Amino acid sequence: MRATVMYGAGDVRVEEVPDASISEPTDALLRITRACICGSDLWPYKQMPADSEGAPMGHEFIGVVEDVGVEVSTVAAGDVVVAPFMFSDGTCDFCGEGLHTSCRKGGMWGRSGTGGGQAEAVRVPYADGTLVKLPVAEDDALMPGLLTLSDVFCTGHHAAVCARVRPGQTVAVVGDGAVGLCGVIAAKRLGAERVLILGRHTDRTDLALELGAADVVAERGKEGVERVRDLTGGEGVHAVLECVGLEQAFQTAIGITRPGGAVGRVGVPQFDSLPGAGLSFFHNITVSGGVAPARAYIEELMPEVLEGDLQPGRVFDSEIGLADVPGGYKAMDERDSIKVMIRP
Amino acid sequence: MRATVMYGAGDVRVEEVPDASISEPTDALLRITRACICGSDLWPYKQMPADSEGAPMGHEFIGVVEDVGVEVSTVAAGDVVVAPFMFSDGTCDFCGEGLHTSCRKGGMWGRSGTGGGQAEAVRVPYADGTLVKLPVAEDDALMPGLLTLSDVFCTGHHAAVCARVRPGQTVAVVGDGAVGLCGVIAAKRLGAERVLILGRHTDRTDLALELGAADVVAERGKEGVERVRDLTGGEGVHAVLECVGLEQAFQTAIGITRPGGAVGRVGVPQFDSLPGAGLSFFHNITVSGGVAPARAYIEELMPEVLEGDLQPGRVFDSEIGLADVPGGYKAMDERDSIKVMIRP
Repeated sequence: MRATVMYGAGDVRVEEVPDASISEPTDALLRITRACICGSDLWPYKQMPADSEGAPMGHEFIGVVEDVGVEVSTVAAGDVVVAPFMFSDGTCDFCGEGLHTSCRKGGMWGRSGTGGGQAEAVRVPYADGTLVKLPVAEDDALMPGLLTLSDVFCTGHHAAVCARVRPGQTVAVVGDGAVGLCGVIAAKRLGAERVLILGRHTDRTDLALELGAADVVAERGKEGVERVRDLTGGEGVHAVLECVGLEQAFQTAIGITRPGGAVGRVGVPQFDSLPGAGLSFFHNITVSGGVAPARAYIEELMPEVLEGDLQPGRVFDSEIGLADVPGGYKAMDERDSIKVMIRP
Repeated sequence: MRATVMYGAGDVRVEEVPDASISEPTDALLRITRACICGSDLWPYKQMPADSEGAPMGHEFIGVVEDVGVEVSTVAAGDVVVAPFMFSDGTCDFCGEGLHTSCRKGGMWGRSGTGGGQAEAVRVPYADGTLVKLPVAEDDALMPGLLTLSDVFCTGHHAAVCARVRPGQTVAVVGDGAVGLCGVIAAKRLGAERVLILGRHTDRTDLALELGAADVVAERGKEGVERVRDLTGGEGVHAVLECVGLEQAFQTAIGITRPGGAVGRVGVPQFDSLPGAGLSFFHNITVSGGVAPARAYIEELMPEVLEGDLQPGRVFDSEIGLADVPGGYKAMDERDSIKVMIRP
């Protein structure tokens, strides 16, 4: 079968690999029908040291179950399913607490002996715990929105939950990438009265406005903090969704948070220490978030996507076949595309 | 009247100053009957640049109301009252949210035209918002415990609240100073099943054991993290109360927190950035806390102190007169005393 493998910064290849197959009784074998490229895939695309073994890529996908192991009971051949961006057994204490990303048996796609999702097929460990059945056909028009349940919409939702967004609040989203855009949807869904988006790519911030944001702040750093304060009567915002992962973005997040407010961070941190230790202390700002337990949120968010009330699928502005995946990485890295959908 | 003034690192003097008096209709004039020295007073005691004007010291005190301004209605001459370590008007939105430390009219003792509490008397701004009446006589035997409501017990409680301590949990307290000891009491009060204290001063950790801690971890840094993991079956703890304010203490706090857990920090940070940005992200650890809104907690905690169920007053191991305050600073700085009570 064909799959995407990264061999180093800028070196993404689609090549023949051994067919995925079931190896454990709790596995499912999935034929992938939709996948995508994640903003977090761009970090290794920028930085990965050359590696002759290569790393299987892709952790967001929808597929059709081809076969299941003898212990799998919740999905069967022919089912259309979505997978969260980490697999999990669904039975451990962390899964029970809704923190599937810390599952005692869980792991990352492309590691732990599984392949990645930017491929024709994949072995799914702990299929009962990991997969969620979708009540639609494999070519349903809602596929883009449903695919965001794999990661990007659940991640934006996690940011909003961790930032403790409540009805009536003013909320800021730092970052205009696909996660930030989903953060706008998530914050509005949780009742935010006014959402500000901090970003400087007008194609993206225009989409943010369509998705419910009221204000765009293009300034960065101190100017960005001042602009948000100007827009909020000097107050700052109750909740900030930090959807970038760079030190300056986090510093901005702390700087624009109202005393007693919270920052929900989902940008994978590209830095060692969280700036603003004094300011966040004197303002009693809570910092929460992390790698989003997407599996915990899929059932909650799916109905509104199925009904069309929420349109997170709008973050996809490009669709390619598997052979074109290297070009998809390039397009996202150069910001020619917000998020690329793959039809293997 | 006599009051304590700091003129620089190590230079604390008790001297004659102009008598405190009422200047605003919302003021009260308080004759101070008990005060104390705070661990946070030791930061300027170590670091303050020489200053010929000097800084009035002391922010924890109990006193008897001598007089009130015409707009004060909740306290009257003769009342015994406790003051939180910041004053606040009790009417703004932040006070309404329980974040009195961000009160729009509030401030710090010894600044904003008020004197400090290590003195014979003090002017209390916004007396209605700031002061809480104590239903005891000024020489009641419970004074040490009641005095901790001014800061140190409420601060330990804030750490426990921000660390989201819940019944049945395993909790760690980082730091064996007076706040850490009060944190042990607060964590047990909120239902912690098992409390570990991280500290290496046996007189203090012995007291922690008497106050309800189950285990003492004397190791620091990586060894401390390993020891806590050993004591918790490799798991780490659900909640950590960071009661030191040094970078290593915070790093330890992150290192011993179970995924999905929380760190409540109340140690005034002596560093700029919070270490462990990656670890706290991948483990979804929440970092909360800051300067404790003591005023929000006094009424909740007072009844159990009055009934003798809680004994936070045990953190005082020394009692001095006002003239001996410089020696009190020295004793605390050299760790000859945990916390010094002053009877002006």
